[in-house]
Amino acid sequence: MSNQALQVLGQDGVAGCCPGLLTAPLAADEAGELARVFKALGDPVRLQLLSMIASRAGGEVCVCDLTPAFEVSQPTISHHLKLLREAGLIEGERRGTWVYYRLVQETTDRLAAILTRSGVR
Amino acid sequence: MSNQALQVLGQDGVAGCCPGLLTAPLAADEAGELARVFKALGDPVRLQLLSMIASRAGGEVCVCDLTPAFEVSQPTISHHLKLLREAGLIEGERRGTWVYYRLVQETTDRLAAILTRSGVR
Repeated sequence: MSNQALQVLGQDGVAGCCPGLLTAPLAADEAGELARVFKALGDPVRLQLLSMIASRAGGEVCVCDLTPAFEVSQPTISHHLKLLREAGLIEGERRGTWVYYRLVQETTDRLAAILTRSGVR
Repeated sequence: MSNQALQVLGQDGVAGCCPGLLTAPLAADEAGELARVFKALGDPVRLQLLSMIASRAGGEVCVCDLTPAFEVSQPTISHHLKLLREAGLIEGERRGTWVYYRLVQETTDRLAAILTRSGVR
């Protein structure tokens, strides 16, 4: 996740908090970064991947367990995982042969706050 | 917003509630409908339009006040508003010459719930 994206999601913002998606008109640059995160969620396979990763007992999933669950190719799954990772929604750690993915709950929490009228001010 | 989309967002679901995006693997059909709503949020101009509509005192905005705020053409704005409307994020009402838009807060509330690990069970 870029620093700019983090800033839009409020982790590193000047005011230490969130853009007012529902409480104030969003500036163009904030909208651009936030749109990138929502765009990452705007695909059925990526949503299924995210839900598989987020709901897994133990909190992480081997990429070797994700790929067989889909009819699309392994490179396609890798591309989707890359987009989720770049949006700051998941993070991956290579251990030996495989990469293990886990949810970045801070990001989904902040998106939820942004979609709540009062925000998290 | 289609009945199917409403169902995915939990208004009309069999269990009367929400798919477990973060709590259980999402089924392919649920993922497809939910992705459509996130995809509607995955564009900077649509996010800015949504934030202008949601944050307006009085709760609604005339389309005549939205168009001048952007450098893109009026038909482009109309197209973005149509996608937001089809996703169930805004609703419009024609009164005289103009259409007035307001946020469908139920939809953003439900998206926020879906992005919260415990959901709204």
